Amino acid sequence: MSRDEHYSVRTDLALEAQEIHVQNDASSSDTDGVQVMEKEIHDIKTTYVTLDESGAERIGKKPGHYITLESQAIRKQDTKLQMNLAKVVSGQLRKILTDSGVTDQDRCLIVGLGNHLVTPDALGPLVTEKVLVTSHLFELQPETVQEGYRSVSAVSPGVMGTTGIETSDMVHGIIEETKPDFVIVIDALASRSINRINATIQISDTGIHPGSGVGNKRKEISKETYQVPVISIGVPTVVDAVTITSDTIDYVLKHFGREWKEKDRPGQALSPALNPFERKTLTEEDHPNEEQSKAVLGMFGQLEEAEKKQLIKEVLTPLGHNLMVTPKEVDTFINDMAHVIASGINGALHPGIEDGEAQSYSR
Amino acid sequence: MSRDEHYSVRTDLALEAQEIHVQNDASSSDTDGVQVMEKEIHDIKTTYVTLDESGAERIGKKPGHYITLESQAIRKQDTKLQMNLAKVVSGQLRKILTDSGVTDQDRCLIVGLGNHLVTPDALGPLVTEKVLVTSHLFELQPETVQEGYRSVSAVSPGVMGTTGIETSDMVHGIIEETKPDFVIVIDALASRSINRINATIQISDTGIHPGSGVGNKRKEISKETYQVPVISIGVPTVVDAVTITSDTIDYVLKHFGREWKEKDRPGQALSPALNPFERKTLTEEDHPNEEQSKAVLGMFGQLEEAEKKQLIKEVLTPLGHNLMVTPKEVDTFINDMAHVIASGINGALHPGIEDGEAQSYSR
Amino acid sequence: MSRDEHYSVRTDLALEAQEIHVQNDASSSDTDGVQVMEKEIHDIKTTYVTLDESGAERIGKKPGHYITLESQAIRKQDTKLQMNLAKVVSGQLRKILTDSGVTDQDRCLIVGLGNHLVTPDALGPLVTEKVLVTSHLFELQPETVQEGYRSVSAVSPGVMGTTGIETSDMVHGIIEETKPDFVIVIDALASRSINRINATIQISDTGIHPGSGVGNKRKEISKETYQVPVISIGVPTVVDAVTITSDTIDYVLKHFGREWKEKDRPGQALSPALNPFERKTLTEEDHPNEEQSKAVLGMFGQLEEAEKKQLIKEVLTPLGHNLMVTPKEVDTFINDMAHVIASGINGALHPGIEDGEAQSYSR
Amino acid sequence: MSRDEHYSVRTDLALEAQEIHVQNDASSSDTDGVQVMEKEIHDIKTTYVTLDESGAERIGKKPGHYITLESQAIRKQDTKLQMNLAKVVSGQLRKILTDSGVTDQDRCLIVGLGNHLVTPDALGPLVTEKVLVTSHLFELQPETVQEGYRSVSAVSPGVMGTTGIETSDMVHGIIEETKPDFVIVIDALASRSINRINATIQISDTGIHPGSGVGNKRKEISKETYQVPVISIGVPTVVDAVTITSDTIDYVLKHFGREWKEKDRPGQALSPALNPFERKTLTEEDHPNEEQSKAVLGMFGQLEEAEKKQLIKEVLTPLGHNLMVTPKEVDTFINDMAHVIASGINGALHPGIEDGEAQSYSR
Repeated sequence: MSRDEHYSVRTDLALEAQEIHVQNDASSSDTDGVQVMEKEIHDIKTTYVTLDESGAERIGKKPGHYITLESQAIRKQDTKLQMNLAKVVSGQLRKILTDSGVTDQDRCLIVGLGNHLVTPDALGPLVTEKVLVTSHLFELQPETVQEGYRSVSAVSPGVMGTTGIETSDMVHGIIEETKPDFVIVIDALASRSINRINATIQISDTGIHPGSGVGNKRKEISKETYQVPVISIGVPTVVDAVTITSDTIDYVLKHFGREWKEKDRPGQALSPALNPFERKTLTEEDHPNEEQSKAVLGMFGQLEEAEKKQLIKEVLTPLGHNLMVTPKEVDTFINDMAHVIASGINGALHPGIEDGEAQSYSR
Repeated sequence: MSRDEHYSVRTDLALEAQEIHVQNDASSSDTDGVQVMEKEIHDIKTTYVTLDESGAERIGKKPGHYITLESQAIRKQDTKLQMNLAKVVSGQLRKILTDSGVTDQDRCLIVGLGNHLVTPDALGPLVTEKVLVTSHLFELQPETVQEGYRSVSAVSPGVMGTTGIETSDMVHGIIEETKPDFVIVIDALASRSINRINATIQISDTGIHPGSGVGNKRKEISKETYQVPVISIGVPTVVDAVTITSDTIDYVLKHFGREWKEKDRPGQALSPALNPFERKTLTEEDHPNEEQSKAVLGMFGQLEEAEKKQLIKEVLTPLGHNLMVTPKEVDTFINDMAHVIASGINGALHPGIEDGEAQSYSR
Repeated sequence: MSRDEHYSVRTDLALEAQEIHVQNDASSSDTDGVQVMEKEIHDIKTTYVTLDESGAERIGKKPGHYITLESQAIRKQDTKLQMNLAKVVSGQLRKILTDSGVTDQDRCLIVGLGNHLVTPDALGPLVTEKVLVTSHLFELQPETVQEGYRSVSAVSPGVMGTTGIETSDMVHGIIEETKPDFVIVIDALASRSINRINATIQISDTGIHPGSGVGNKRKEISKETYQVPVISIGVPTVVDAVTITSDTIDYVLKHFGREWKEKDRPGQALSPALNPFERKTLTEEDHPNEEQSKAVLGMFGQLEEAEKKQLIKEVLTPLGHNLMVTPKEVDTFINDMAHVIASGINGALHPGIEDGEAQSYSR
Repeated sequence: MSRDEHYSVRTDLALEAQEIHVQNDASSSDTDGVQVMEKEIHDIKTTYVTLDESGAERIGKKPGHYITLESQAIRKQDTKLQMNLAKVVSGQLRKILTDSGVTDQDRCLIVGLGNHLVTPDALGPLVTEKVLVTSHLFELQPETVQEGYRSVSAVSPGVMGTTGIETSDMVHGIIEETKPDFVIVIDALASRSINRINATIQISDTGIHPGSGVGNKRKEISKETYQVPVISIGVPTVVDAVTITSDTIDYVLKHFGREWKEKDRPGQALSPALNPFERKTLTEEDHPNEEQSKAVLGMFGQLEEAEKKQLIKEVLTPLGHNLMVTPKEVDTFINDMAHVIASGINGALHPGIEDGEAQSYSR
């Protein structure tokens, strides 16, 4: 069935995985192992997704908690919104750390994944440069450390393409050597939606699979592997050009189908819900029912999913590989996002840093 | 007429403008003021477009000569192909300079347009950093200058967003002050095709309109303005996300139309010519005839062009502006392209530099 | 006379020039055309030097006002001290602008001299990147400009070594084109004291001679040349290695002379005034009297000044050129100093920016 | 004893340590456990120092082999000299690897020590970015690896000040994890001579003590610690300002002493051997004999070594710490040196790379 193929669309975001799932499986309900809760304060929309074993299997993500923050602070290049976003990151991070059993004295290792020479992949390394690092002070000059600070170290292990070493092996060596009480991993993600680029932050307690290390338990950076809490912070910074187009076409077809059916109802505006990248309360109308779909697809001689993909691929990937793209303003976006996340982490890890000051500890 | 709207699609490449034109106007022929000639040597396809007054008006570009080089050297990150491409740039540049009446003693000013802090827009500034600059030697230590070199200076005037000054005013001030015998301007362009990004170099003798300076003769950097030859070198480094999608949908619809008509002819492969980004000999099959189009459009209740655009815009631009995207590997691509162009310019300007050495003068 | 040679020691700071002069000419007094006034608030020492025509000639600097701020804020990497320093820069700049007849509506051109690819010379270009630029808004969208802001543009003309064009010619072209009401020029300077590196800011109303453009009135960027006020901000970022050593030896010899004479007075500490880089009230003791000097020099067989220099040169400059050095931490120091100066300029130019906010306009 | 203090002068170069030793101990001879051999080809002087246990103890360095290359290729910014230097690095490296028992199939780990954000300390990280990394290809696509290449990985562990983790611990974790057959470590060094900065490359088989990790066997990266050959490549990039001055004064005093004694012999030129930074055949004349010294020191009332140092410190270090300085051109120098070393390593590790091509594998 073509639905299976849909799951293969690359997304590193639980929120997207869940949305795709819901879109494709009308019979599912939120209660089948997937809990979704959301709230919106000021300009930031926060969504909590909790997956139990059954929900995780259906969604294709690991069981655990996923907090997704959505904000236009970076894209609008609005300093005040960014400061506010950093505070929300602090708060959510503090909460997930507490829920994971982390206490104020626990020693933290921050791991910034990615390649510092490839701007859209440099988020992790940049965050490690900007966070407040204290573990050497605890080690060498404990008398200089003030109340309210914890021991934090930060590493940027590079990527296999430039080190020749699988990233998870590097991280494994460092964790084994330094024995932190918990780990925070930052990574740049691929999204299937151009709208999420630099506009979404996902915080989760499920750990991370860096790079290509799939199907190997030891390659995972997670609580299961290291017996310490592993919190991951992910931000989509690139989007697959085939996916953008494929999604758009799906929605266009869907729209055409509805239009076709409803063309006698004049004056109806284009539904804002057509935007596939906005989470929405799904209604029957948004999802072409079987009859509509059949009609549309019928008209096109039941063009196969595979053929459709093939067509787009031919158009977009003459070089034989999927092109990942990023907004033109990538330099500023990545730098600002790193600042927001580093400030958020600083505020969450050190109770001694007051809310307003977390920013000045990152540069 | 909806076709007019097509012309408004943003492209800085004469080749694309001409293709769009041909696609939209089946009645045009190459002889109507537009001469196109192409050859392919090794991995580089070179297209010569010459526009006289009438052709220029129809295409919507300035009259003059446009040389377009197409190569995958940068994207494949293949050093040897890049060295070869640099040599071809040198040759073409030498030719267009000679045709423009430039002699070996003429003093050159190189102008690198763009913002060196925005990687996909940093091509011009990077080229000025990499070219061989000699005019101060001619001025201060003429005895040190060897035979076979000319006086070259290079400036990077910045962009209005960071200087507050219209770029053309800056360039005007510098040209008035330094009185060069000819000018070479380098700029990063927008393409309407993701396939052209960092894969196309356009060399032209028509000058350039930096930034927003439209409709003001003095704002143009051209022979008309300064009475000296102005050669422009442009490379598409960004693509408008709406345009990618819009193009793809057009082709998908076209394909659907043909499929629908031809679905009884089993086994027919998808035409490689479906790729809208490859120049091609246009055949009837590629262009849905009126009947096909009517059928397809008919099926969709004659969805209007404007409505189609609106649909895509809703999907892609929730922030209210067109998103320009660039490949993830932007840092390497731009740096390599700057190296190719700087080497090409060095080889063209200084007969004293031997073919194999032009590279080592740029870094 | 050896004094003449002393004047040839390179310094771009009026304060240093005046100190050298005083040291070498015991008969001079502050009233001979040189007014010096100083105050110290918190960690910042401010010295005002005013030179009239006669004083200027004696000191070897242009007549005018020189304000020198000395602070360890950058070297100590202390963010709070840096914010404070930026406020003092704002205040002094506002004062010198007012004294120069600049009003709130006057349009400003900021010129950042230097080479952005050579870190210790990148101060000027970095400041232009960090200041608030508004002139394009005044031009294109005047309705969006709030009360309390003025029109500001900012350019970074590069250096002759990379552009091939004399910097003053570039600036001339830009000023002629944009016709600002006043100009602020920022430049990295050479100091003769390692202690001043990134620890001193000189603000003056005498304009500037960029690069090698000496002896040519038009090459100067000053009120005389352009009939508009030209304020220069200079920061020493490099020091000549020969000069450090030469100065140290002079002081060591001086100390040896005194020591020799005073060795019977036990318990006397080394005079703090031995530091040649601290301004001081000069006392007889600091300056070896003729007898002392004769004794010391006598011991060395009246070693000639030229021979002494030659000796040091042999030790330090086997490559035949003077080596300029900069502290190892140059990247951070230059970036922080650029931030301080940009914040200071923002606060001085726009009354609408409140004191505490000037920082957030520069990044 | 004052001589002991001399030994404490910081130098990371065996050549300098040996020179200081010889200067201070006239009774030593080359045969006391220290073998020195030198040759000069074209512009490169190569010195081989071999220390056995007794020599090592006297010099204060580890026993082993030290190869020192001296060249002005970087400082003169001469591309051809740099290519030549890279070939010599390759040759010497190949030899020391063979002597250490490394075979063509052995897997190499390259460790670039230093802080990539502090330019003069960024040499190691830059080299790791520029070397040819292949181990992931051997692991994942062994069929793509050509004859004549070996498995190489490269890491840049950062510095304790930014990671919070002792560098040697990081390296330990990575070596334990990846189990290389041999290790090459690159580091930026401090020199006591400004003339060596970016003009000297030291290759040794004695391993390295990164950062402050002193007196702890496990903190050392060496054959003793890991049972595999560890080759270190060190380049002096910074110099201690106090040391420059102190050395100069010593030589000036020495010169004054000799001058004083020999002032009746007119016409004698200043000895070129006065340059303390050139290795030289030591003659009696260069070293003031006891009588001379006594005379000079006598004149100064037997100024104590400690007092002399104190004097210089007062002059140079008002901030209470020794200032390390680097040439103004640090950005270019470090980048070019990294290129030379990376090319040298590539050529040495992969027999498949021909001499002329080693450069093009590093960028």
